Amino acid sequence: MNDRNTYLIDIPLDEARARLAQALQEAGRDAPLPGETIPLTEALGRVTAEPIWAKLSAPHYHAAAMDGYAVRAEDTRTATETRPLSLQLEEQAKPVNTGDPLPPGMNAVIMIEDVQQPEAGSIVIYHPVAPWQHVRMVGEDMVATELVLPANHKIRPVDIGAIAGCGHHQVKVRRKPLAVIIPTGSELVPADHPPAPGQIIEYNSLVLTAQIRDAGGEAQVTDIIPDDRQRLLETVQFALQRQPDVLLLLSGSSAGSRDFTANIVRELGQLLVHGVAVRPGHPVIMGMIGTTPVIGVPGYPVSAALTGEIFIQPLIARWLGQPSPLEARPRAQAIMTRKLVSPTGDDDFVRVSVAQVGDRLLAAPLSRGAGVITSLVRADGLAHIPRFSEGVDMGQPVNVILYRDLEAIRKTLLAQGSHDPMLDLLAQFVAEQFPGSRLASANVGSLGGLVALRRKEAHFAGVHLLDEATGEYNIAYVEKYLPNETLQLMTFAHREQGLIVPKGNPLNVQGLDDLPRLRYVNRQRGAGTRLLLDYELKQRGIAPEQIAGYEREEYTHLGVAVAVATGIADCGLGVRSAAIALGLDFVPVGWERYDFVFPTEHLAVLQPVISVINTDRFKAALATQPGYNTQDTGRIQFSR
Amino acid sequence: MNDRNTYLIDIPLDEARARLAQALQEAGRDAPLPGETIPLTEALGRVTAEPIWAKLSAPHYHAAAMDGYAVRAEDTRTATETRPLSLQLEEQAKPVNTGDPLPPGMNAVIMIEDVQQPEAGSIVIYHPVAPWQHVRMVGEDMVATELVLPANHKIRPVDIGAIAGCGHHQVKVRRKPLAVIIPTGSELVPADHPPAPGQIIEYNSLVLTAQIRDAGGEAQVTDIIPDDRQRLLETVQFALQRQPDVLLLLSGSSAGSRDFTANIVRELGQLLVHGVAVRPGHPVIMGMIGTTPVIGVPGYPVSAALTGEIFIQPLIARWLGQPSPLEARPRAQAIMTRKLVSPTGDDDFVRVSVAQVGDRLLAAPLSRGAGVITSLVRADGLAHIPRFSEGVDMGQPVNVILYRDLEAIRKTLLAQGSHDPMLDLLAQFVAEQFPGSRLASANVGSLGGLVALRRKEAHFAGVHLLDEATGEYNIAYVEKYLPNETLQLMTFAHREQGLIVPKGNPLNVQGLDDLPRLRYVNRQRGAGTRLLLDYELKQRGIAPEQIAGYEREEYTHLGVAVAVATGIADCGLGVRSAAIALGLDFVPVGWERYDFVFPTEHLAVLQPVISVINTDRFKAALATQPGYNTQDTGRIQFSR
Repeated sequence: MNDRNTYLIDIPLDEARARLAQALQEAGRDAPLPGETIPLTEALGRVTAEPIWAKLSAPHYHAAAMDGYAVRAEDTRTATETRPLSLQLEEQAKPVNTGDPLPPGMNAVIMIEDVQQPEAGSIVIYHPVAPWQHVRMVGEDMVATELVLPANHKIRPVDIGAIAGCGHHQVKVRRKPLAVIIPTGSELVPADHPPAPGQIIEYNSLVLTAQIRDAGGEAQVTDIIPDDRQRLLETVQFALQRQPDVLLLLSGSSAGSRDFTANIVRELGQLLVHGVAVRPGHPVIMGMIGTTPVIGVPGYPVSAALTGEIFIQPLIARWLGQPSPLEARPRAQAIMTRKLVSPTGDDDFVRVSVAQVGDRLLAAPLSRGAGVITSLVRADGLAHIPRFSEGVDMGQPVNVILYRDLEAIRKTLLAQGSHDPMLDLLAQFVAEQFPGSRLASANVGSLGGLVALRRKEAHFAGVHLLDEATGEYNIAYVEKYLPNETLQLMTFAHREQGLIVPKGNPLNVQGLDDLPRLRYVNRQRGAGTRLLLDYELKQRGIAPEQIAGYEREEYTHLGVAVAVATGIADCGLGVRSAAIALGLDFVPVGWERYDFVFPTEHLAVLQPVISVINTDRFKAALATQPGYNTQDTGRIQFSR
Repeated sequence: MNDRNTYLIDIPLDEARARLAQALQEAGRDAPLPGETIPLTEALGRVTAEPIWAKLSAPHYHAAAMDGYAVRAEDTRTATETRPLSLQLEEQAKPVNTGDPLPPGMNAVIMIEDVQQPEAGSIVIYHPVAPWQHVRMVGEDMVATELVLPANHKIRPVDIGAIAGCGHHQVKVRRKPLAVIIPTGSELVPADHPPAPGQIIEYNSLVLTAQIRDAGGEAQVTDIIPDDRQRLLETVQFALQRQPDVLLLLSGSSAGSRDFTANIVRELGQLLVHGVAVRPGHPVIMGMIGTTPVIGVPGYPVSAALTGEIFIQPLIARWLGQPSPLEARPRAQAIMTRKLVSPTGDDDFVRVSVAQVGDRLLAAPLSRGAGVITSLVRADGLAHIPRFSEGVDMGQPVNVILYRDLEAIRKTLLAQGSHDPMLDLLAQFVAEQFPGSRLASANVGSLGGLVALRRKEAHFAGVHLLDEATGEYNIAYVEKYLPNETLQLMTFAHREQGLIVPKGNPLNVQGLDDLPRLRYVNRQRGAGTRLLLDYELKQRGIAPEQIAGYEREEYTHLGVAVAVATGIADCGLGVRSAAIALGLDFVPVGWERYDFVFPTEHLAVLQPVISVINTDRFKAALATQPGYNTQDTGRIQFSR
């Protein structure tokens, strides 16, 4: 066996689906699963396996619809305001409460309010009543034999009432499809084991189990199997004895471990698909062992999650007679905020942030790496760039499958601009104090933020831009980049900037004058921190070419800190909180003002952010962070 | 105690909510609940109780991003296509698989495809590589200390991966709020007891339990308590010992049982609200016993379900830091198909069918009775007619909270027209064979169906309209009512019409000539069955005035059968299947052709219906029904 077979023959997505569908059909495994009878108390969220026909009518007897007296309408004919009529109790009028059966012979109810009772034994009425007045007649709501719910219906709270109300106390629902999941890979450790270098926490099985449950199935996960062909073979054979509806082999990250999967499927059954032209997720494997479908899931978490969404959840859903969760999600057209290039041969699925700014729905692509699980967490939607397309230009519409409903997306506040670690703190406070509201931020640097506001692609921007001429922060740049906007400039905090250096400061960095002798890591063009560096270098007469690593760019303070922590660079300019977060040392350079730009047109939408910033609780939480000063937090520095 | 106190003082919805909110605040019960730590395997759908900050970076070491060889970029500088470079294995190049840690000193990876190995002990390369090529650097995806998820976030499958991936194997989630539910009412029996007349199946507790679970809480239900003040009082005191977050008293249907609730709340604590100006649902009761909120839920099922949606689910959601399910539902404007009158003093919540016909979203109000639980099952949305509004005119827009996503609603096929019990069979086949598709039908009679098509308010109509002049079915009416539409007329079935009479035919009904001596129940104006009756009466020279009950109208065949079964009438004209459904006898009158009118513009959308009708399986199922002949089923009788 070639254990380093790196070339996979990718087939198109549609063909991969078709091959699996055909194999399932041939195995007689493509129909919804049979039913099992369960009590109604367990029925929520299950799927009806057969239609539910009413056994009882509702009401199942003629019932009083009001509290009052049951009468014969014929007896009341002569009653008028001026000539009230007396009816004998028991014989001509019987007291009834709402829901009581109509006494035999009676055919109407008089409300208690319309009756007087000057003496015992009789009542007095002032109007005649029509037959069947205030009576709920048998079957008025539902007639026995009527269809209450069709098969393949996912049971909601009210459905349980309808099923009980028409005379059933049990319901036949589709059996939950069972998946057995085998995680493989010698480098994997379970989530409760702290990983050593080279070890990777195995969490794809957790994600896939949850995806399968979300789609209505159940999953069992075996121990992690190392890259040992014989052990994997035995585990597969053992797993098949549990008679799962589908078997999932979660590959480790290397091509080697994937080949074990393909090889074993080929040995025990039929290999149908070895690689699919989807991005991310190429190395998907599909096959059949006997009548059991087997899916080899790629190891990278974004690939694994997508495989769950486009192959595994649809399979579970099909066995329940349901549309797949992804199919059932709402869709929308959104405007791309960046150009997106896509390989023409692939169906490309790109996770995007989605927010509504003004009356436009915007899609901002998230980092596309197959390993970037935060892109899964942050995604509001999945943009599908179909095969044969070369991508989507900036400003062009793209079709997005939405993970959050549009209602929720309308509560997403999109910040673009300078990165500050404390935006996370703000996001946390907003989520806590305004349930349903959500702060999403894209780190594009201070100037990028102003440009995004000009293009109406953000609700607000965080900026810290030093004006060389005046030594003042932000106002000059706002005047220049947003000359025609009405807006407010509100201070978030004063922050301490400095050089982030390794623990103990081994190279004895004293300040910016030392940079020519050090390996530096820079921030990207347009970042306020980059402008600050350039300003300070100019003051000192140091040319960028004198600094090794000036061209190496990171997009966040934490990125700079990571580069220092891992020895890629000796130092980089950034905020104190980033150094502290990674246990690094910090050589102060100075304080700067970090403001938010709030366009007037978004002030209403931005209330959650504005109101959090102005709470004492938030200011206190921010003030405890080293490197932040809140003396001006919430102050409006400028408005027009 | 006055146990027949029928007058409640209704306060506006907003004020009721405000009183409860204030009482909760005063009791210190308005904040989200504290957290409990659970393993990640149980985290799906739970709500984070605190922000989750990354404990580990991801990757947590510099990792090979490809299968290949780790090298020092500096060593590769001189390699070219024409002057390949040889690197010593172990010293200058170490084999790595994807995910392996980068060996110390190495700073790049060459893909295995870009390497040749003509001899053991060394590899040959043809291009220089840049530092950090094919390396996933520490923190590339996520940096320790970053915010992964905020508090109050409902955990989805991918979130579980992110939580595990950043170093947590447990998560602190909000405790599930606990409701104790006490069903009260001497007339109530549990769902597994067949009810006698006067007994009502108690299912509100099932619906409320499911609503509470749906919102993220848990519920415990006590035995049904009869209308006995002392026993109810003891049960409430016992229930409070379980320390629920909220106590629900489900009233029976009578005003008497409601008064027990108010009375006990007043005795043990504070009565805040006794009646709310909402429709349906007026008799809602709210109070506090100690720091526990108590809600008295009205007995009618639609009122109870609405109380769950507008008062109880929001409370559960608030304790979880979540928006309430109803708040989070998508909303849409839809066009009312009928005039809707609303009492100005009430917030009126009307359940509606919603379907998209052409490019218009339509809302058709369902039966508004507080007892009509099928209106809950059939509702696609909830139209809110606010206080001080008098209603909505036909053709006017109304705001609808949608129970199904718009995606699902776009798959709803709306039939308006003549009622046939076998539409249920068709709906069942459509749901089974086209997952996600749904057939909704409104019984407005054959002529009503044609008018609905003319007004573009249905996808198709079922009609059986006998033309007196030609003796032919349907075509003449289509020509008259839809002269300008392109359409197809397709036969659903031939059906047998006749007189539905009580079991054993005690009055020895022989045919329509007997009608003048019988109590009749009629169908509504515009129904094909009514036209058939009128045609036959004319042939026989019988005037409508000669028939007792001619003016008594039912909207469905089953409605007619119910009137006969319960002795309201001696007979009525209808299809054989309706008589059989209720165990009645049937005196045949003749066969008629029941067709569907399919406008050409909707043919694509209607494929699920058309294709089901043409399957042998459906025809066979229909043919086994007494009173149906499928010789022409699926035949196109007319098209233009």
